[in-house]
Amino acid sequence: MSLIAVGTVAFDAIETPFGKIDKVVGGAATYITLAASYFVKTSRLISVVGDDFPSAFLNEMSHRGIAQEGLQIKAGEKSFFWSGKYHYDLNSRDTLITDLNVLADFKPIVPNSYLPCDFLMLGNLDPGVQLEVINQIPVRPRFVVLDTMNFWMDVALDKLKEVLLKVDVLTINDEEARQLAQEYSLVKAAAKIMAMGPKYLIIKKGEHGALLFDKDQVFFAPALPLEEVVDPTGAGDTFAGGFIGYLAHTGDLSFENMKRAVIIGSAMASFTCEAFGPERLMNLKTEEIDTRIQRFVDLVDFDILLIE
Amino acid sequence: MSLIAVGTVAFDAIETPFGKIDKVVGGAATYITLAASYFVKTSRLISVVGDDFPSAFLNEMSHRGIAQEGLQIKAGEKSFFWSGKYHYDLNSRDTLITDLNVLADFKPIVPNSYLPCDFLMLGNLDPGVQLEVINQIPVRPRFVVLDTMNFWMDVALDKLKEVLLKVDVLTINDEEARQLAQEYSLVKAAAKIMAMGPKYLIIKKGEHGALLFDKDQVFFAPALPLEEVVDPTGAGDTFAGGFIGYLAHTGDLSFENMKRAVIIGSAMASFTCEAFGPERLMNLKTEEIDTRIQRFVDLVDFDILLIE
Repeated sequence: MSLIAVGTVAFDAIETPFGKIDKVVGGAATYITLAASYFVKTSRLISVVGDDFPSAFLNEMSHRGIAQEGLQIKAGEKSFFWSGKYHYDLNSRDTLITDLNVLADFKPIVPNSYLPCDFLMLGNLDPGVQLEVINQIPVRPRFVVLDTMNFWMDVALDKLKEVLLKVDVLTINDEEARQLAQEYSLVKAAAKIMAMGPKYLIIKKGEHGALLFDKDQVFFAPALPLEEVVDPTGAGDTFAGGFIGYLAHTGDLSFENMKRAVIIGSAMASFTCEAFGPERLMNLKTEEIDTRIQRFVDLVDFDILLIE
Repeated sequence: MSLIAVGTVAFDAIETPFGKIDKVVGGAATYITLAASYFVKTSRLISVVGDDFPSAFLNEMSHRGIAQEGLQIKAGEKSFFWSGKYHYDLNSRDTLITDLNVLADFKPIVPNSYLPCDFLMLGNLDPGVQLEVINQIPVRPRFVVLDTMNFWMDVALDKLKEVLLKVDVLTINDEEARQLAQEYSLVKAAAKIMAMGPKYLIIKKGEHGALLFDKDQVFFAPALPLEEVVDPTGAGDTFAGGFIGYLAHTGDLSFENMKRAVIIGSAMASFTCEAFGPERLMNLKTEEIDTRIQRFVDLVDFDILLIE
């Protein structure tokens, strides 16, 4: 099944309580496509960078089956740059710098070679840009996943609601779910959000795991308690890439298989947290991934007798 | 198996974003013994109240098999009173009033009729009081569970460390685990805390579930995403009561059975969150509890194929 991912490809500067890095490759679409590359042979990138972006890294992405006809490289311009600092609680962070650079006037182009599109991953970006991508795909993809954040709820809520009408799954964190639904209870919030369009909602809770909702069911995936959490940047994007990559690989959109995809996404995200930048996602072995997935299975494995 | 529980029996005044109650029965030992009463025929209470405490409530506890020879009723004195206000995020709260009253000079007495003791639950209290209870039990109980909180780490750390040497399980929340161990990673914090005495550590994360650690393993129990969270007061105590009650009922202290006990404790705690005070714990039906436990099973139930 073919997969298109749109999102940022960028540089990050990151400070966590455990270290600091001044410049590392980042961006939502970077993490999404790298995570998906372990499940699909080809994923198709839509993004924009400046000519300061290292071609060696793009070559690595090529080797991992990430098609780049939809990646615009702007001569004489700079790539998107984000700088952030995490609190001691790694679940929250402050943005220090956002230099939009090439992103300021990004007009995404979906190349003909990318069509038809079966699976579409809309990484966190201006909802207007996400909408432009959707509108360039003549036949609706079989499955569309949307990631977004509170910033877009604050500044582009109407556009975001337009996008919500066109997607199958929304992934956001618990605070964002409460903000979007104006509802404290996550169960009630999920119902309200699904009434806005998506058939499924995934609430990402960082170190506290993730919840998958549909109209009638809820599934809970734990996060692995990590011995060495170094940097959670990109974990949500990696989750999304693993999730949609696994679904594209299997082609099975049942709730049962979606649960598996959530576990896969969580397992992939746990690797991303172990190092600054996407380093851990460049050369994972199948056995490493399988061992990690097995740890998730063990983490929640119990049998129970009902009480007498 | 016989079970002794020590802790407060008290009045609470509580404000949450969803309601307010000026006076309701509360206290750690109230929730612990009520939760345990669904699993053990008799539990034995050690606590103190004033003569303002409603005898009707004590009679209800008697009917649920909660022995009260160890409950001191102080004539002319007032029961312990706690008042708190929860933030919109129900995982955090401010204490508004703490009137120690009878608790100020509480000297716990373990009646001979309570001995021998197989299971001992030390509810959240001054570690000095917890130690006095331990010291009055001539033969070490088979299994001792300790609950405590950050306040005692701040004001009575040495005493608390003395207690830690004498218990099998410690239950605290994630923030407290990090404070006690001076370590951000919960995996590393757990190892440090188990080196202080307990063979097992349970980290309670409120709406994010609970983690059970031993030296080699970790188990994750989800919390039920509640449609109607009204008041989480007593949820941690209810968890502890369900946990130790189930272990006392089965007499099985294997890690496998401890996982089940964590699920049972989580299920019982979910009832407590549905109303102010211990109301929901007074008249639960076995079928209600079984249905709730089954929801926990379903919540984390998946099967997975490793990737090819």
